Amino acid sequence: MTTTRSLVVPLPDTTATCQARRRLDELVKPVGSLGRLEELAAWLCGAHGTVPPRPLDDVRVAVFAGDHGVSAAPPGAPGVSAYPRELTAAMVRVFQAGTSGVTVLAREVGARVRVLDIAVDAELDDVARDVVARKVRRGSGAIDVEDALTPGEAEQAFSVGRAVADEEVDAGADLLIPGDMGIGNSTVAAALVGASLGLPAHRVVGTGTGVDETGHAHKVAVVERALHRVEGRVADPFDRLTALGSACAAATAGFLVQAAVRSTPVVLDGVFSLAAALVARDIAPDAARWWLAGHRSTEPAQSVALTALGLEPILDLGLRLGEGSGAVQAVPVLRAARAVLADMGSLADLT
Amino acid sequence: MTTTRSLVVPLPDTTATCQARRRLDELVKPVGSLGRLEELAAWLCGAHGTVPPRPLDDVRVAVFAGDHGVSAAPPGAPGVSAYPRELTAAMVRVFQAGTSGVTVLAREVGARVRVLDIAVDAELDDVARDVVARKVRRGSGAIDVEDALTPGEAEQAFSVGRAVADEEVDAGADLLIPGDMGIGNSTVAAALVGASLGLPAHRVVGTGTGVDETGHAHKVAVVERALHRVEGRVADPFDRLTALGSACAAATAGFLVQAAVRSTPVVLDGVFSLAAALVARDIAPDAARWWLAGHRSTEPAQSVALTALGLEPILDLGLRLGEGSGAVQAVPVLRAARAVLADMGSLADLT
Repeated sequence: MTTTRSLVVPLPDTTATCQARRRLDELVKPVGSLGRLEELAAWLCGAHGTVPPRPLDDVRVAVFAGDHGVSAAPPGAPGVSAYPRELTAAMVRVFQAGTSGVTVLAREVGARVRVLDIAVDAELDDVARDVVARKVRRGSGAIDVEDALTPGEAEQAFSVGRAVADEEVDAGADLLIPGDMGIGNSTVAAALVGASLGLPAHRVVGTGTGVDETGHAHKVAVVERALHRVEGRVADPFDRLTALGSACAAATAGFLVQAAVRSTPVVLDGVFSLAAALVARDIAPDAARWWLAGHRSTEPAQSVALTALGLEPILDLGLRLGEGSGAVQAVPVLRAARAVLADMGSLADLT
Repeated sequence: MTTTRSLVVPLPDTTATCQARRRLDELVKPVGSLGRLEELAAWLCGAHGTVPPRPLDDVRVAVFAGDHGVSAAPPGAPGVSAYPRELTAAMVRVFQAGTSGVTVLAREVGARVRVLDIAVDAELDDVARDVVARKVRRGSGAIDVEDALTPGEAEQAFSVGRAVADEEVDAGADLLIPGDMGIGNSTVAAALVGASLGLPAHRVVGTGTGVDETGHAHKVAVVERALHRVEGRVADPFDRLTALGSACAAATAGFLVQAAVRSTPVVLDGVFSLAAALVARDIAPDAARWWLAGHRSTEPAQSVALTALGLEPILDLGLRLGEGSGAVQAVPVLRAARAVLADMGSLADLT
C-alpha cells in the first residue's frame, strides 16, 4: 500500500509529561484539585515537548464536505436523514458566507475554518477555487448495495486529507480539528464504527440530524444491509473506507494520521470524526496518541468509538451538529489547562 | 428581618426566552442540534430581556475569603482539612499577586477577580485597603460546639455580599461569579447543605482539598455533631447561616440574592457557592431563576445541592479547587451560546 509506506508517527514526549505532572503538584492548590485540567495540561506538554506547552494561538478546523449515495431516497420513501441531500451543496455556501454553526463558534475562540468540497454531488462553480480544488468525486456509492468508492479513490481521498493536514501545519497550526458536513454522514459513520468494532447496526445507529421513528428504522435497515454485504472483507482499514466509507471519511482519516506524523495535537469532534479515527488507528496505531475527544455527542456510535479509543470527552453538551462544532468549544478548556501550568504560583512561594 | 425587607427579585423575561427559542429553530442547523447551547442561549435572552442577549464582555468574580473555627485542630489531632488554616491568609496574598488558580483561569477568559477578606483569622495589614475594607470578623465559631456567628454578624455579612454585588453591577458587570477561599470551607458547606436538605453528614461530606480516610471520618463526625447541635432550630435561613455558616457563606448568599435583585445572571461554582445558594433561595426563592451551574465538582454536597436547585452543570471536569475556578471556565460556553443566536444564518436563506 504505497499511500501508507511513508507513515512514521513520532511518540509524544513522556519526559515532558512527567515534568509537567511534577510541576502541577508544586502549584499553589491542593494536589489534583484541578482534575481534568491537570491531565490535559500534562498531555499538551507531551505533545509539544515543553513545560509549559506552547500557547494554542493558531487553531485550525478543516471541514470535509461531501455527499453519500445512501442519502438518495425516492420521493415519498423514508430517507436516512431528516434533510434532503441538496442541502450539502447549499451548506458549502453558508460556510463561505461565515454563518455556519462551526464558523460562528470558531470565531468565538479565534480558530480558523476551512471548508473543502471533497465529494459534494454538485458542481460548485460559484465558490472559491480553493474550496473545490481537492474534489475527489461527486457523492459516493450507496453502501447498502455497492462499495462507496473505488480503491483508488479511497487512497486519493486519504492523500488529500494528509495534504490538507500538511498545509495547515506548515501554515502554523498549533492544534487541528477535523470537521465534517454532508447529508448522510451519520449513516456512513455508523456503518464504519459497526464494521470497525464488530457491532450490529442497532448498537451504532442514532437519529443523526433528527430522523423520526420510521426514519430511524430505515437507517438501521440500511446499515444492517451494508454490514452484511461487506462481511468478512473489511478487516483492512482501506478496504473498509472503500466499501463502507466515503471520500470525506477517507480524507478525515488521512488528516488525522498526518497530524500525528507532524506531531500536531488534534481534537476530535462528533460521530463522523470518531468513525474516521477508528479507521485511522488501524492504519497507524500510534496516531491515536495525538488525539483528544472534544465532546460527547448524542450519537451512540460516537460513544462506543470513544470507549474503544480510550478517550474521555472534555465536554458533554448534547450536541449533534457535526462540522467540528463540539471540538472548537473544547479549545478554551485546553487553553485554561495550559495557563494553569504557565501562570500559577508555587506552594513553595507561600509566605 | 430588616436585611431582607427590600428584596424584590424581578423575573426573567419569558417573552424574550420564547422569541429566542423560535429564532433558534430557524437557524441553519437541524432543530435542536446544538443541544445545551440552545437552552443556554434562550436562558440568557430571558435574563437580558433581548434576542440575541448582550455580549458577556464584563464578567466579574468576587472571592469571599475567611476562616472557620472548625478548622482549628490541636497539634497531632486529625483536622477537617489537608492544609493548615494559616494558608487562608497566605492565599489572599497569592490572589493579590495574580497567581491563584481562579486569577489565572479568569485572565484566560477576560474576567476580573476581586478578593475580599470577609473573615480571615489574621490582620492583613500588608494587602490593599479595599481587600480588607469589608471584614466582618476574624474566623468564626467552631460549628460542632458553638454557633458560627452572632445573628448581627450574619446580617452584616449578608449585607456586605449584597453591597459587593451592587458595586460590581454598577461598574458594568454582565455576569457575576461567586468565589470562595478558606481552609475549612467544604466542611461548613457540607453542614449547610445537610441542614438545608435534611441530609445526614455521611451523605454530604466529601474529601474537600484532599483529606485521607482518617480525616474524612473526623470531618463526618464534626458535621454530624454540628447538625445534631442545631437540630430543630435552623429552618429559618438566617438562623442556619448564624448557627452553621460563616461570614463568607452569609456574604455569598447576599451576593447571590442581590445579583438577582439587579437582574444580573450568575454562574455558580463549587460546593461552597451551592451551599450558599440553597440558603439564598430560602431567603428569596425567585433569585434562583438568575443562576446557572458552571460545573460539577467532586464534592457530594455540591451534587445534591445541584439536584435540589434543579440545576444541570455546564462542565464536568472533576474540579475541587473552589475560588470560582470552575465557574469561570463555563464563560466561553455561554459566549458560544450567545454567538449562535447573534451570528448564525437562517435556514430560509439557503439557496
